[in-house]
Amino acid sequence: MGHSVKQLAILGSTGSIGQQTLEIVRALPHRFQVIALAAGKNTDLLARQIDEFKPRFVYYQDKKTRLANAEYELLSLADMATHPQVDTVVIATSGQSALAPTLAAVRAGKNVALANKESLVVAGEIITNEAKIYNARILPIDSEHSAIWQCLTGETAPAAQLILTASGGPFHHYSPAQLNNVTAKQALRHPTWRMGRKVTVDSATLMNKGLEVIEAHWLFDIPFDNIKVLIHPESIIHSMVEFIDGVVKAQLSYPDMRLPIQYALSYPERLNNPELPRLDWSKIKNLTLAPPDFATFPCLKLAIEVGKKGETYPAVLCAADEVAVELFLSQRIKFTDIARLIEETLAEHDPIAQPTLEEIMAADDWARERVLKFINGDNR
Amino acid sequence: MGHSVKQLAILGSTGSIGQQTLEIVRALPHRFQVIALAAGKNTDLLARQIDEFKPRFVYYQDKKTRLANAEYELLSLADMATHPQVDTVVIATSGQSALAPTLAAVRAGKNVALANKESLVVAGEIITNEAKIYNARILPIDSEHSAIWQCLTGETAPAAQLILTASGGPFHHYSPAQLNNVTAKQALRHPTWRMGRKVTVDSATLMNKGLEVIEAHWLFDIPFDNIKVLIHPESIIHSMVEFIDGVVKAQLSYPDMRLPIQYALSYPERLNNPELPRLDWSKIKNLTLAPPDFATFPCLKLAIEVGKKGETYPAVLCAADEVAVELFLSQRIKFTDIARLIEETLAEHDPIAQPTLEEIMAADDWARERVLKFINGDNR
Repeated sequence: MGHSVKQLAILGSTGSIGQQTLEIVRALPHRFQVIALAAGKNTDLLARQIDEFKPRFVYYQDKKTRLANAEYELLSLADMATHPQVDTVVIATSGQSALAPTLAAVRAGKNVALANKESLVVAGEIITNEAKIYNARILPIDSEHSAIWQCLTGETAPAAQLILTASGGPFHHYSPAQLNNVTAKQALRHPTWRMGRKVTVDSATLMNKGLEVIEAHWLFDIPFDNIKVLIHPESIIHSMVEFIDGVVKAQLSYPDMRLPIQYALSYPERLNNPELPRLDWSKIKNLTLAPPDFATFPCLKLAIEVGKKGETYPAVLCAADEVAVELFLSQRIKFTDIARLIEETLAEHDPIAQPTLEEIMAADDWARERVLKFINGDNR
Repeated sequence: MGHSVKQLAILGSTGSIGQQTLEIVRALPHRFQVIALAAGKNTDLLARQIDEFKPRFVYYQDKKTRLANAEYELLSLADMATHPQVDTVVIATSGQSALAPTLAAVRAGKNVALANKESLVVAGEIITNEAKIYNARILPIDSEHSAIWQCLTGETAPAAQLILTASGGPFHHYSPAQLNNVTAKQALRHPTWRMGRKVTVDSATLMNKGLEVIEAHWLFDIPFDNIKVLIHPESIIHSMVEFIDGVVKAQLSYPDMRLPIQYALSYPERLNNPELPRLDWSKIKNLTLAPPDFATFPCLKLAIEVGKKGETYPAVLCAADEVAVELFLSQRIKFTDIARLIEETLAEHDPIAQPTLEEIMAADDWARERVLKFINGDNR
């Protein structure tokens, strides 16, 4: 058919988004090829991925052992993200380790399919400015931002308002007292989405939605006051855009991350992929919408406030949240302690305006230590 | 601001769509100007419109009396629709009288903002073919087709499925027995939309939705089997498009015809018009969707079948419906007789394949006479 085959570098190939990206490549091998794979410690899975997709370049943390039978060349994350043969860099790692390769890919003018939340939250201004300078395109993989992006496609008018939907997570309608006793197992049981552990807990606290508000602010250049959150437990409407004439566009689909992943890869085209689920209209009776409960889920408000403040606060928010979620998952703190620990850490932070990447990293380090000190009983 | 002012010819300015078009012009006089107004018999209102908007050209049926104080030149509908100074022709008349001026505007390569349903239903193939040849743009004013058009904006992939929503009208959930006794007054009480009498009754029978399926088929070049109807009583989602990757886009707004009218006029821009209502998200709790009840509302199925058959059947459908609705409104037949009369008329029709305009008009005339004969007791 004369279509070019897009060459992908997938950073974080063994995680949830990485694996689902490979499912897309497996289903559409005439459109996508894997040129580079990078993973952390899950070398067993990475070895199998190398055997199947035969990437030319590979990165993994423990470089001593040789993986798989296929031939490959070891390459650093930054070299992968900027390699001339790479068309699209998929940033599917979680946490702030994505920041450096994301910026490298942006400065190389790549298409950057971005699933990582933290980079835009902590360094949204730097990334979006550099993307403009180097003519790189940020292709959001989050279902909400993909939805907004799709609703904006072809529109010349600016958005008047973005409406991010949130499933509400497994504890939607819980009272503060009920939330006090929820377990990690319950928090990991998301009603509609299949995702990694960290983001699943963030969905339960609504921190995830707060981080997405900050991302949306940077991705679409919209003031925080024009970004609204609505709880939509069915996870069918993935977000909406309200235009200046009062018209609203919504993007809907079965909740499956492969849809926004494929769109980021195939943009501006859409591809028929029989593996992807379709909405079954005979089963969709009701699409409900409700305002979020900011009092019971304080992380949402915390994140939006931090987004407005800017400076190094977002870095502190992300780092403190990451540590707090880990502590909750290892049963060292309660669910409701997550927001409390983040809030206390933010309150003690001395912010730096217009931070450099180094200052962002330093704020991150500081926040991690501070959270651990709190729970180890120091300085209380 | 350097925007050009679009010159509008409004055919049917005293009807519901015509009046609402003038409300848009009144609100945005720096963007739209009325160069021509045409109306039927409501010369009192037309005179007031002439005084307010000072069109250069005017048409009305009874040309003997001079209207209004303002200067104007009398012009035929066809001359208005093709005048070189006209940018956009708004076809806001109902019934098949719109067909000739619509075709004239299309052949003059105009932007044709089309609110009239019948033209596309009876002559969709001719109109859409001529629009391609003469490079005219059909800008749909119906809320459903405007929604679909807006969802397709900027998309390069073809639609896999169109989903037209229907309010269900005032008799949604009525049983056939209940329908038997409804009055014209009840039928005219539409729960969500402010529209003309004919289209309001067509909404109650679901004939309106059937006609819209046929229009959608022609406007968007989609097979009938890929057009779905869902009942959505809130009238917030105005229609949806499902793409080949499983993604669905929906267009939502407060149910107010001024929104699709303004979009047709301002396309490809969107304009801020403080007069237009915005959705109030604090009041939208539930968007419900359900399959239509084809058995209780036979007009919907009749229309879709007629659309698939083509030939002169759509002309017979439209004409028979127009007469039957008039008979119902004048209390000469029951609500449930509308579908029965149309079905009987269709059953007796000798269709003509690939009809010319004259053959379409002749089928229309035949159907009107046939319906009247049925109720006058002839040939039963």
